[in-house]
Amino acid sequence: MKGFAGKILRINLTKKEIKTEPLKEEMARKYLGGVGFGARILYEEVPAKADPLGPDNKLIITPGILVATGLPTMSKTALNFKSPLTGGYGRSVVGAYLGEELKKAGYDAIIIEGKSENPVYILIEDSKVEIKDASGLWGMLTSEAHKKLQEMHGKVRTGIIGPAGEKLSKISEVDFEERQAARAGVGAVMGSKKLKAIAVKGSGEVEYHDKQMLKELILKWGKILKEHPATEADMKYGSGEFYEWVNRERGTFPSLNWRYGYMPVYDQLKEGEKSHLDPYYWSPKYTVKNRPCPHCTKPCGRYIKISDGKYAGTEVEGVEYEVLYSLGGVLGIDDIGAVAKMNKLCDDYGLDAISAGVTLAWAMDCYENGLLTKEDTDGLDLKFGNDEAAVKAIEKMGKKEGKLGELLFNGSKEAAEKLGKDSWKYAVHIKGLELPAYDIRGLKGVALAFAVSTRGGCHLTGGAYGIELTGAWWKMKGIDRTKGEWKGFEIKTLEDLMTLYDAIGACKFSRHMFFIEAFPEMMKAITGWDMGEEELWVAGERIYNITKMFNVREGFSRKDDHLPWKVQNVPIPKGPSKGLFVSQDEFDRMLDEYYIARGWSREGIPTKAKLSQLGLKDLAEEPFAAGI
Amino acid sequence: MKGFAGKILRINLTKKEIKTEPLKEEMARKYLGGVGFGARILYEEVPAKADPLGPDNKLIITPGILVATGLPTMSKTALNFKSPLTGGYGRSVVGAYLGEELKKAGYDAIIIEGKSENPVYILIEDSKVEIKDASGLWGMLTSEAHKKLQEMHGKVRTGIIGPAGEKLSKISEVDFEERQAARAGVGAVMGSKKLKAIAVKGSGEVEYHDKQMLKELILKWGKILKEHPATEADMKYGSGEFYEWVNRERGTFPSLNWRYGYMPVYDQLKEGEKSHLDPYYWSPKYTVKNRPCPHCTKPCGRYIKISDGKYAGTEVEGVEYEVLYSLGGVLGIDDIGAVAKMNKLCDDYGLDAISAGVTLAWAMDCYENGLLTKEDTDGLDLKFGNDEAAVKAIEKMGKKEGKLGELLFNGSKEAAEKLGKDSWKYAVHIKGLELPAYDIRGLKGVALAFAVSTRGGCHLTGGAYGIELTGAWWKMKGIDRTKGEWKGFEIKTLEDLMTLYDAIGACKFSRHMFFIEAFPEMMKAITGWDMGEEELWVAGERIYNITKMFNVREGFSRKDDHLPWKVQNVPIPKGPSKGLFVSQDEFDRMLDEYYIARGWSREGIPTKAKLSQLGLKDLAEEPFAAGI
Repeated sequence: MKGFAGKILRINLTKKEIKTEPLKEEMARKYLGGVGFGARILYEEVPAKADPLGPDNKLIITPGILVATGLPTMSKTALNFKSPLTGGYGRSVVGAYLGEELKKAGYDAIIIEGKSENPVYILIEDSKVEIKDASGLWGMLTSEAHKKLQEMHGKVRTGIIGPAGEKLSKISEVDFEERQAARAGVGAVMGSKKLKAIAVKGSGEVEYHDKQMLKELILKWGKILKEHPATEADMKYGSGEFYEWVNRERGTFPSLNWRYGYMPVYDQLKEGEKSHLDPYYWSPKYTVKNRPCPHCTKPCGRYIKISDGKYAGTEVEGVEYEVLYSLGGVLGIDDIGAVAKMNKLCDDYGLDAISAGVTLAWAMDCYENGLLTKEDTDGLDLKFGNDEAAVKAIEKMGKKEGKLGELLFNGSKEAAEKLGKDSWKYAVHIKGLELPAYDIRGLKGVALAFAVSTRGGCHLTGGAYGIELTGAWWKMKGIDRTKGEWKGFEIKTLEDLMTLYDAIGACKFSRHMFFIEAFPEMMKAITGWDMGEEELWVAGERIYNITKMFNVREGFSRKDDHLPWKVQNVPIPKGPSKGLFVSQDEFDRMLDEYYIARGWSREGIPTKAKLSQLGLKDLAEEPFAAGI
Repeated sequence: MKGFAGKILRINLTKKEIKTEPLKEEMARKYLGGVGFGARILYEEVPAKADPLGPDNKLIITPGILVATGLPTMSKTALNFKSPLTGGYGRSVVGAYLGEELKKAGYDAIIIEGKSENPVYILIEDSKVEIKDASGLWGMLTSEAHKKLQEMHGKVRTGIIGPAGEKLSKISEVDFEERQAARAGVGAVMGSKKLKAIAVKGSGEVEYHDKQMLKELILKWGKILKEHPATEADMKYGSGEFYEWVNRERGTFPSLNWRYGYMPVYDQLKEGEKSHLDPYYWSPKYTVKNRPCPHCTKPCGRYIKISDGKYAGTEVEGVEYEVLYSLGGVLGIDDIGAVAKMNKLCDDYGLDAISAGVTLAWAMDCYENGLLTKEDTDGLDLKFGNDEAAVKAIEKMGKKEGKLGELLFNGSKEAAEKLGKDSWKYAVHIKGLELPAYDIRGLKGVALAFAVSTRGGCHLTGGAYGIELTGAWWKMKGIDRTKGEWKGFEIKTLEDLMTLYDAIGACKFSRHMFFIEAFPEMMKAITGWDMGEEELWVAGERIYNITKMFNVREGFSRKDDHLPWKVQNVPIPKGPSKGLFVSQDEFDRMLDEYYIARGWSREGIPTKAKLSQLGLKDLAEEPFAAGI
């Protein structure tokens, strides 16, 4: 089968068994790769109610189908697992060199199952696959372990957990050479298997259907991306380029644990001054170099070094837009040095920087509201804006150190459950996953997208922030972010498309350039298949419905598609989105419309009819699929 | 291209030009045949605002893709046109021998365009195609003309209009050897082109991908159909088999112009007695023989002869369930002899038996309510139940004779507009098309399906009566016919499936046997294509959206998806559905849910996003497609 390595690598850590299995053509055509393979295998192989941190959970690593083709931005590799954070479907996608290496080594997917007794790492050098002792790596920061692995094995590409993952933090991540598969507790899944790292070197080549056509497409799309009007600013300022606009023009940048819809500093700034989190302020000052994902012709990633102030000397890849929020704005900190420092700590200790920051914001809110005292914080004065306390707190989380480290180690939901009282009202999560950097009180479609996302509160499942912030995208116009009505089909469409991106391996930051139009010709060049856009849409929808069915099998239903308390009960107090929030009536209608657009039941369960229409006959037979 | 004749025959009656054009592979795969070809060609070739009775309208005749394969029930041939009755998309599908003959003659479609000055007929004998003088046929009843054509040309298969079509009745039909393409005024389209008949003889063979597989499938599905538990009753009693059940158990048989939900005679019948419209009463008594559509292994059609009473001697193919209503129940007539007589008159004069009967029911209602007097009725005493007056009235309609014939000739909508006053309240139509035999006050999902059907009030567009009457069908369960909520996805699904049936050429009375499962293997044997069910679903949805866009281009929107006044204002007065009706609030919610399920706008306009998802990029670019 052209375009595929043709093999799945299965590694059982309990039995220390390594084998390969052929990739079937039907599987390839229906699920493409990436989250497509991941969702399908996960559904088939991880039984209902499996302990996410037990040997029955699996970690399935799947590069997108277009990874390792040289096509621009195609580097996204999915980690698929049952989430210890949400108890449901888990995926975490990363722009990683490891994915490309995997395909070159001859594998379309790795399934890691079972559980080792002692720390191990997996070394893959083409067909040579070994489970190796990692006792020398255990306890290391991710950057140290990466260095060590390259010292031992040459230029291997790695995915590594830090101390947080080792200690099973439910908000721990996997680090891929300073890019992270961060969300939903994937680090703990590796940690629970005592798997410190995966290191891959591949020297083979995947066979493609039409190399000449591929070459032309690489040039064509590389040029389109490079010359797109948005690219220059993306390259100069990165994903935070629109930071000021989201704050000032939309008022949808949730600051101080969602107290405000923009950074309070904007009330004081004079003409021409910038918030210190604004890349227009810090990127020219601190950027050392661009740091692209593989094959990107519009690289938004950068490597920075803080050269002044009390965090001088801090180096990190970033800082991404999300982190400007999670380790900056939501903590009330307008200091890029502090943010960079915490970012580096998260990467090194292997903590999801979004979840870690939003969990800390919860603690600050509790502290300011008297629900936490210095006794609970190991003496830290956890006021909003106290950057030094925040830096120390993040380090404690990474190490699971002290009372505070213990409390925050597994994210805001569990912390609030432990602390009790009204503290749950300050926990800004959905299904356990902490929310990203969009104040969904003022972005109603995004509120819906966050609420229904199968992995929990996530901006990437639907990617709806783009269309809601701007009001128009792709074939849709006149989107009113302040109203909840008539969003069902919009969000369904976006989810199906973003799922397709995660199956293909494309960068979602290029979705306004690729849309879906790019993919049929790319698929043709790679596989030889004639896949019209309509087949790709159905593939996206098919995969998404599997992730939903995974959750339904775990007992999820309408009740789990919820919003955080603040979003429903505390209107945005000032700014361009003043007064906005999501009432229960409005939200109920939004859910209804979304489920209807999806062909799901009133309880949010995929119907047998819809599953059949997607070619998921086996799932349609599941007793828990809805009759109507 | 296997499975296709590969040619489209284009006949211009203005220029007397005949040519053939190749069928393109993309067209074949995306649209299959039948209404698929029809909708696409219609959309492309009949300009917006074209006069349905002018030369710009076209009549496109398209056998389903599986017609002429020998596969059971595959005989359905679509007539596609702009409807003079609704002003929108028109289709009329018929189980015709002519369709099979056409494919054997080497054509997948005929496009008839322009307008002849003098009466003509088209004679097709394989590659020999002629436009011939029809002055000798003009004015003839359909049965006479058919006889004459066979006398002249041997065993040609025919489609013929009667005097009603010649005189441009907007409720006139085309007769195919006692099967009718009846609805939406297709007879007048032929009449406007001065085209009396089409006669076809084909001696070729279509090439199929896998003849052995085809043979096996013919046997396999023939057996499944034959042995299905419903088949015996269907063969004995025909489509009216469930007549008593619909009356007594559901109370959803609209009688006396929708005054009641069942035939009043049931209030008088003693134990064991039957309504005289019930096939259990009349079929054993009068059936001469079964009269199947081509290749049917579960033939429900019959030829009857009334052997007693005042209509003794009447012979007709029928009487179908719909006609038991339209020429029986809705007129308050419980006499199969009278119904058979009127049925024969409709067939001979070429009137749509549903529309003709329901239009007459409107006149009776007006008469009983004093809006029409004997002066208007040419002296007829048009009380409900007066069978002799009804028979005379139908004949007058067929001939456009007298004041009454003139008034009723173009259907109930136009008649009510002419008569004025409150008479529109008694007109039971949607978009101009008279309603079929299901009291949609007690079948809420069917109400929605009728309201939104792109060809107007129609039971076949969604075929929802089966699921709503029984509460479960295919993958759907727990359907509550008394509630309007949560029907959007159900109706969308059914419409897409029924559209697929009309593209394939399958009998909708077999939908509980074929579902969709039958078609992938059939398509494989015929064409060699691997078409999963999901591709077929998308094809159905794609075609349906074109029919909608045809209407939108004509100015249709939410306002045109309406219900008859009685359905919204007069609850069913007694019986199992007592008290049921459809309020405006309920209906608004139903429309919202349906549009959302379809990915259309609040105004009921297909969105550019949905059209793109269906591979209809050109339609997505139309300025009148919805942004969101």
